[in-house]
Amino acid sequence: MRGRIYGIGVGTGDPEDITLKAIRLIKESDVLVCPRKDLTKCRAYQIAKQAIPEIGSIETLAFEFEMTRDVYECKRNHKKIYDIVKELVFAGKMVAFLTIGDPALYSTYSYIAELARRDGIETYSVSGINSISACANSLGMPLCEGEEQLHVIPDTENLEEFLDLPGTKVIMKCGGDMRRVKEKLKKKRNISVYAVSECGTGDERCYRGIGELPEDGRYMLTIIVKTKEEKD
Amino acid sequence: MRGRIYGIGVGTGDPEDITLKAIRLIKESDVLVCPRKDLTKCRAYQIAKQAIPEIGSIETLAFEFEMTRDVYECKRNHKKIYDIVKELVFAGKMVAFLTIGDPALYSTYSYIAELARRDGIETYSVSGINSISACANSLGMPLCEGEEQLHVIPDTENLEEFLDLPGTKVIMKCGGDMRRVKEKLKKKRNISVYAVSECGTGDERCYRGIGELPEDGRYMLTIIVKTKEEKD
Repeated sequence: MRGRIYGIGVGTGDPEDITLKAIRLIKESDVLVCPRKDLTKCRAYQIAKQAIPEIGSIETLAFEFEMTRDVYECKRNHKKIYDIVKELVFAGKMVAFLTIGDPALYSTYSYIAELARRDGIETYSVSGINSISACANSLGMPLCEGEEQLHVIPDTENLEEFLDLPGTKVIMKCGGDMRRVKEKLKKKRNISVYAVSECGTGDERCYRGIGELPEDGRYMLTIIVKTKEEKD
Repeated sequence: MRGRIYGIGVGTGDPEDITLKAIRLIKESDVLVCPRKDLTKCRAYQIAKQAIPEIGSIETLAFEFEMTRDVYECKRNHKKIYDIVKELVFAGKMVAFLTIGDPALYSTYSYIAELARRDGIETYSVSGINSISACANSLGMPLCEGEEQLHVIPDTENLEEFLDLPGTKVIMKCGGDMRRVKEKLKKKRNISVYAVSECGTGDERCYRGIGELPEDGRYMLTIIVKTKEEKD
């Protein structure tokens, strides 16, 4: 019998944000795949471990999913990981990739799953709480109501144009580019700016207003830009 | 001691998509508030009930959250529900609103929470799997990868302009307007269209291609529009 691959979202940081399905499938897995070589620094694994203390007894492969803007290097890295996973699946194993947030949104898992599907391997994605929902809820405010649109940008290119869109805007993965982001936000009128860093962890911090935004956006910062309501 | 209000997301339909936190807080609640008078037809309650069979022993208020496009009637309805909830909170009760999907995205709870905050009542939102993530995962495909943007529209106004945005587009709440939506989708080049109805329930159905889309979009249909990749 052939194995299969699961991409399992574990939410952004709070182990209580894990779903029943994620817990069941992690426990049923033969092999876990984690995106950091050092498991003590792997956020996805540490979230899961708090919810599933016995996770240590499951065989675990820890790879360094190196972040690079070089598309070819990136593809080579994915292929290298996939080749190892493929052998396990062909040996009948159920392999689970742990991903922060949700596997459908900006996850490395999606590249591995694409390679697997091309080889006819069954893949299943298990929803996790994504950072869009988690950050709004940490701030205790709605992202969108009624007919408001929602727009998400995962980098800081074309930010000016993006900020002109109607409704609520979410900026993810600001990287080290916070100064530029703040400058662009300051130029916009009638917006309210919020952000959350390290959402769901013990280090979570909420920011209200451009002035409060940190200088360094590298640590899992999500910015939410709302259009100010006209008073009636 | 004063009570508080929780908005608890229970996901789109699959009871296994419920989080540990949602389960704990529902169990700890003094009173549950549900958005349908008839609990057997209340999707949020039925999802929770499958995950928490003992939910029947918790006091439950079932209101009909009537959907209306009349803003004033809508506000009156929210106020009426809020006034009842407020008394409970002032009597020290912990009141939990069950919401389909996530409370930050297009939930009725957010209006009640806003009224409560104005009265100085503590409100907490508990993330649920939103339909954006759930539908993509049911389809077994990523919503966004790399630098792709994500855009969500909760109605069918300005759809043409919306479909011109870069990246992945999600159309929610198509209502009875499916014919118009399909016509507009057909006019676009280089897009791939997917949809999921009744996501996470036993009646879930996935659609691939405009031709497969149902004529009737009223029953929890989410459409995902992806830009076709240029082959390299």
